Amino acid sequence: MGKLGSVLLVGAGPGDPDLLTVRAVKVIERAGAVVHDRLVSPEILALAPRRALLVPVGKAAQRHPVPQSRINEILIDLARRGLAVVRLKGGDPFVFGRGGEEALALRAAGIPVGVVPGITAAQGAAAAAGAPLTQRGLATGLRYVTGHCRGDRPLDLDWAGLADPETTLVIYMGVATMAEIAARLMAHGMPGDLPVLAVAEATTPRERRLVSRLDAIARDAREAGLAAPVLFVVGRVAALADPLPLAAQLRAMAANA
Amino acid sequence: MGKLGSVLLVGAGPGDPDLLTVRAVKVIERAGAVVHDRLVSPEILALAPRRALLVPVGKAAQRHPVPQSRINEILIDLARRGLAVVRLKGGDPFVFGRGGEEALALRAAGIPVGVVPGITAAQGAAAAAGAPLTQRGLATGLRYVTGHCRGDRPLDLDWAGLADPETTLVIYMGVATMAEIAARLMAHGMPGDLPVLAVAEATTPRERRLVSRLDAIARDAREAGLAAPVLFVVGRVAALADPLPLAAQLRAMAANA
Repeated sequence: MGKLGSVLLVGAGPGDPDLLTVRAVKVIERAGAVVHDRLVSPEILALAPRRALLVPVGKAAQRHPVPQSRINEILIDLARRGLAVVRLKGGDPFVFGRGGEEALALRAAGIPVGVVPGITAAQGAAAAAGAPLTQRGLATGLRYVTGHCRGDRPLDLDWAGLADPETTLVIYMGVATMAEIAARLMAHGMPGDLPVLAVAEATTPRERRLVSRLDAIARDAREAGLAAPVLFVVGRVAALADPLPLAAQLRAMAANA
Repeated sequence: MGKLGSVLLVGAGPGDPDLLTVRAVKVIERAGAVVHDRLVSPEILALAPRRALLVPVGKAAQRHPVPQSRINEILIDLARRGLAVVRLKGGDPFVFGRGGEEALALRAAGIPVGVVPGITAAQGAAAAAGAPLTQRGLATGLRYVTGHCRGDRPLDLDWAGLADPETTLVIYMGVATMAEIAARLMAHGMPGDLPVLAVAEATTPRERRLVSRLDAIARDAREAGLAAPVLFVVGRVAALADPLPLAAQLRAMAANA
């Protein structure tokens, strides 16, 4: 039997290749195989060596996603073939990335596993928009939740705890459920005029953002045609978002560099 | 009057220079001035060009910290002298970094300002420990709070909302107040046997970590001599932390590379 490989779970960040960590770039450049989600951009995949196997496992439109158990098997199999495997995920593998499940499966199979963190979409979107996620006097803390439902189940969140206007609330995967989320938060006391920032495809050249308020955001995001991946930043800090879209900001910064 | 400079608020990440983003490295390498916190490591500051001004503004032991208003003035002054200023902060400038206050002061002064996000200490610590911050069945969300009090004021947090065992709770700057925090969380229903991971100097060669439970963590961290900066990860995911310390893990990965 040959030498055992290893798996690194690597955060690809929010989209912009310059928001990869230095370590992520180094390990992608040395990878024997890259197992990647659909949202990882071609520019990032291009960092892999030519000889590296590229294995897409993300959901594609109109196709069944690769089940998590199958992804785990693919990772274990590639490592057992002696490869240095990079499992590349949007954002951070340990924040809504199901990286924990993969790490446990790999540990159970005796495969050496490590983790390289990544900038989350929320951090990327906040930086691009100039809206801090915490701010003295506006937000003393930060909370991430997902608005995704499994199947037909209703959203089961701690609404009373979430409706704290002192905490910035970041909602991932909420584009389909934002109307329900907003209604529940308001029913638990969050003010309807609380600012909300919605960002689609954060930090990419296709980034789109809008600032609205809790009682209007679901309609405004729909009318603006924001399509997944969209994240919502709910809280007073959202009012600080820069009105300039990212592309114009980058031009202004470049003119000044 | 000369050309106006600019200020980039840049996340230096949790400590390991390889956890800087590619963009952070690029902008530090081109900086005319680097205004930095005390926790930013010498290896990271060494990326700045020789001609760059290095301006430390962080708290040092036994000394008064530079007040925030003075930091704002320094940034504005350096930019008005035409410099490309990098304001380098541990973690992410928009997560407990007071970056929002600096961004607003700079905008008000007409200085072009941009933000480069950084890996938070929590993300770095979780990746190093192999403990996911969210995990199906264990934690559906993630919350960051600070345990720091201003002056003699009592901690004023939404205890009922925080005591949600479905949410991973990350506590920054809590080493002095962890006993009080744990007592309050338990009084609001969090189980005393909930796992807690404590990490000092995450991702650096001096990283130290321990896993305990909510009703014992304050004593255990004190007895282990963990000194600030320490962060606490409270929640079921903490039980998944790798028992190997980071240095041993890195050796194992290197042996396998």
